[in-house]
Amino acid sequence: MPAWKCPRCGFRGDLSSEYYWKCPVCSSPLSLEYSVSGEITESKNVWERYRGFIPFKPEKYRGEGLTPLVVESTGAHELLFKLEYLNPGGSFKDRGTALAVYYGFKMGFRKSVVDTSGNTGISVALYSRLYGLNSVIIMPREAPEGKKRAVRQLGGVVIETEGRLGASKLVYEYINEPGTYYVAHLWNPLYIVGHATIAYEVYEDIGVPDYVIVPVGSGGLLLGVVYGFEKLRDLGLTNKVPRVIAVQGYSTQPVYTAMYGGSLSGEPSTLADGIMVSNPPRLAEIVDAIKRTNGEVVLIGNSEIARAHKTLWEWGFTVEPTSAVVYAAYEKISAKIPSKSRVLLVLTGSGLKTL
Amino acid sequence: MPAWKCPRCGFRGDLSSEYYWKCPVCSSPLSLEYSVSGEITESKNVWERYRGFIPFKPEKYRGEGLTPLVVESTGAHELLFKLEYLNPGGSFKDRGTALAVYYGFKMGFRKSVVDTSGNTGISVALYSRLYGLNSVIIMPREAPEGKKRAVRQLGGVVIETEGRLGASKLVYEYINEPGTYYVAHLWNPLYIVGHATIAYEVYEDIGVPDYVIVPVGSGGLLLGVVYGFEKLRDLGLTNKVPRVIAVQGYSTQPVYTAMYGGSLSGEPSTLADGIMVSNPPRLAEIVDAIKRTNGEVVLIGNSEIARAHKTLWEWGFTVEPTSAVVYAAYEKISAKIPSKSRVLLVLTGSGLKTL
Repeated sequence: MPAWKCPRCGFRGDLSSEYYWKCPVCSSPLSLEYSVSGEITESKNVWERYRGFIPFKPEKYRGEGLTPLVVESTGAHELLFKLEYLNPGGSFKDRGTALAVYYGFKMGFRKSVVDTSGNTGISVALYSRLYGLNSVIIMPREAPEGKKRAVRQLGGVVIETEGRLGASKLVYEYINEPGTYYVAHLWNPLYIVGHATIAYEVYEDIGVPDYVIVPVGSGGLLLGVVYGFEKLRDLGLTNKVPRVIAVQGYSTQPVYTAMYGGSLSGEPSTLADGIMVSNPPRLAEIVDAIKRTNGEVVLIGNSEIARAHKTLWEWGFTVEPTSAVVYAAYEKISAKIPSKSRVLLVLTGSGLKTL
Repeated sequence: MPAWKCPRCGFRGDLSSEYYWKCPVCSSPLSLEYSVSGEITESKNVWERYRGFIPFKPEKYRGEGLTPLVVESTGAHELLFKLEYLNPGGSFKDRGTALAVYYGFKMGFRKSVVDTSGNTGISVALYSRLYGLNSVIIMPREAPEGKKRAVRQLGGVVIETEGRLGASKLVYEYINEPGTYYVAHLWNPLYIVGHATIAYEVYEDIGVPDYVIVPVGSGGLLLGVVYGFEKLRDLGLTNKVPRVIAVQGYSTQPVYTAMYGGSLSGEPSTLADGIMVSNPPRLAEIVDAIKRTNGEVVLIGNSEIARAHKTLWEWGFTVEPTSAVVYAAYEKISAKIPSKSRVLLVLTGSGLKTL
């Protein structure tokens, strides 16, 4: 039986009897414990295809997952672009939300609430409505207008706050209302389970790459990808896990600080609004994961983001600025990457929303 | 050897020696003649998967094709939503453009030009830049701002005109410039060849549906889908071709008029800007195709489009208003569709661009 588990204090709880968005004993982020068969089917529905890797299968499907992989050679390296911006809500978050909101629905919640810089809001509004849940999306006033409009058209209620931190605070006024599901994507391990499907898809498409470059805000994407490849290794399907390059901006660099101590000064990185999470609950877990893969943290700033963003569009990748940080980071460290390496770049969110 | 062929006057021309966007003898739209093996591979690159169905394979790939199919039951019918808005340029046009622009590149053109209501412009700018061609996109001033911005970010030059008709006229001032490739998506049969891949994908996913509902502007989508299913039948892979429901708006109904004579009055259909093509060059071919499938033309107006658009978003389909016409048409005629029918609805373009 799938269960919540606290890696810190050892708490365990049955997944089917209660929802804990954090450990009820020590307030740490929880993990999910469930068995993995490793069976992969031929289905084009991501949840059927990887049913052997997930704790349950959502009833609804809106085209999430199984995104294209585009391979381009730079001469020195083979770049593998994973087009997560072609998910139905325009970002990789749909993989996690599809599981997380379905779970909330099965638990009998009637309403969902989430604090977000934007993309998770679109995703939560989309899947909530699908299951008949009303959604309340708390996001910074300065988030792109397109993201707010998308939430509203999807049937969500937008509540605007001062900054991302304001959203994190305000959400506590909503989460104890009866019947309310706090999606808590920074905490909820179902996001990590969902994002891990990226690793399974890449493994099926080209095997295990040498490097993977991911933006890190809450770290759910990084953890999903690392755990996904580790799961494939534990099942004996490969003996390799890619080295992780975690990308943050100079403006918000908690993972850098936790890895190396101190901080690095550089120009602001405000263009990457999607990864400005100053206090990710899974910080220690993120650092552990990076270290296990022998990875590193790379910091970038606005002019590097803007240049990378322009380049990606000209190459036909219609991403938002936050997504461009992975290519900015690649440019910054490419000289250090051994020749012939295969480098996975996860392109996280659609730029069509922010035109 | 693949060749241009004029179904009207019998003209033939070698595909590898000259580009004709219309018949040089009688000015009719051309067809493409090439052999089809019918072999389907397991590749996740649409052009490798259906290499046995296309005249050549483009060198570049940006994630076009192999879009998700979402199945929902209404009780009476099984609705099959084909999520073409999850193509990299945000619409089904990418399937045609990927072939058409590659072909222009191979022919040695240095510049592309196209007249469009918008989506084709995004698509042509995207693939042109990929092959090093400069693109000039001629579109109506009243096209959504988001579409113009997308073209510019993709490296295209936008030229604005009065209305879609203005664009069709102005383009003639560009097409004779040396080295210029007139993409001519209303004429170029490579679009039909590209769009036919939708039929192959649906066939692989669920077999052949009973009905297919498509919006009709230039008719390239309708013709692609019909020819695709007919090709599968001619290869002996199925004995069935779906009945086609062609959807137009009251404001611009050339296909309705050509099918039934006269016209039908109703409220304006200006919300469906993507299908306001008053004089589609392949009109006779479109009517033939609809009749062959025992299909029909359905007209809809703005209030029906707006209602269907709202419904689709609430169901998690983030489409533009033009795409909603297929669901509006389904609502209008669903009582006539036999119980248990499987009905394919092609959702053509992304609404994220027009937020």
